[in-house]
Amino acid sequence: MNKIITIGREFGSGGRELGRRLAEELGIAYYDKEIISEISRKTSLSEQYVQAIIEHTPIHSYPIHIGRSFYAPMNPVFEQALSIYKEQARIIQEMALQSDCVIVGRCADYILRDDRPFRLFVYADMESKIARCRKKGPEEDFSDKELAQKIKNIDRQRAKYYESYTGNVWGDKLNFDFCINTTQTEIKKIVPALAKFFA
Amino acid sequence: MNKIITIGREFGSGGRELGRRLAEELGIAYYDKEIISEISRKTSLSEQYVQAIIEHTPIHSYPIHIGRSFYAPMNPVFEQALSIYKEQARIIQEMALQSDCVIVGRCADYILRDDRPFRLFVYADMESKIARCRKKGPEEDFSDKELAQKIKNIDRQRAKYYESYTGNVWGDKLNFDFCINTTQTEIKKIVPALAKFFA
Repeated sequence: MNKIITIGREFGSGGRELGRRLAEELGIAYYDKEIISEISRKTSLSEQYVQAIIEHTPIHSYPIHIGRSFYAPMNPVFEQALSIYKEQARIIQEMALQSDCVIVGRCADYILRDDRPFRLFVYADMESKIARCRKKGPEEDFSDKELAQKIKNIDRQRAKYYESYTGNVWGDKLNFDFCINTTQTEIKKIVPALAKFFA
Repeated sequence: MNKIITIGREFGSGGRELGRRLAEELGIAYYDKEIISEISRKTSLSEQYVQAIIEHTPIHSYPIHIGRSFYAPMNPVFEQALSIYKEQARIIQEMALQSDCVIVGRCADYILRDDRPFRLFVYADMESKIARCRKKGPEEDFSDKELAQKIKNIDRQRAKYYESYTGNVWGDKLNFDFCINTTQTEIKKIVPALAKFFA
């Protein structure tokens, strides 16, 4: 069985950086945006389109994993979102079979649940998340309040997406093995010690 | 500055065992019930009485850390609970000054906040918590439902106590650096790897 580490993360928490550095430190594969590229390749849809579909959960009154009512007709946008999700699940399962890896986001913790991956969740307080966003895009001229709102909106969208496909509450610590608080933390400083846990 | 690890934990999650083993692995002091004994010694109250006071948060409409209203007369039980809490805070601060240590429960994460301890929270799903309780007290004849209720009641009491004295929500992951899920986990198997993070 390969060593699989999945990472859920709040926007601005540095979860992606943590995942990338952890994979580097452990010398294992790292998958993040590669999954979008692969879906795009397999479905012949553009990466932008796949990304947009993934970022906008279709409105649906039941968690998708429960199935649909006999009486509820599917709509084409929902059908496409579901087929992209299925493609994503297939790709993630293939990645997990290939080698040890770190997979960021994309419900990988749920998709791979039968393989018992090690599930990390990365979070931070709003002040730290705002500071990280400013560091990444210093040219953008948002007030702290605007940035906080944007961060909240993105996480709300992630939560909806995750909950639609898994039926689980996004960020609920019971769905993770380790939750790591990166408030006022320099990611590169904690990764070597964290990697020892997996080595 | 000494290395201080504080541990908050759900009842039945194995948090105390994790703390004890972690301290052993790191070769540092471990404080848990010793705090009660020390309060008892300093206040000349029996350990049982101190424990009972600590387990039963006095009814008070404001978080204690905010202070009391000029118009609200203190009652003797509340006064005593508060003085025991203050004694506890003093003892925990002394312990943190003495040497590296692991401190389980007792709002140590909050009491030592200015020293920036490493704050762990240990939790698990109800099934695992019930299984751990059965292992500890196999002679007790409770149904799963009764045990679950007892576990919930103890945690509700811990939450009330913590919230009264700190004004923070008990178990909120933002108040911890690491949250560790011990569902279906043998504590002694994860501690050596976890200790490497602190070594």
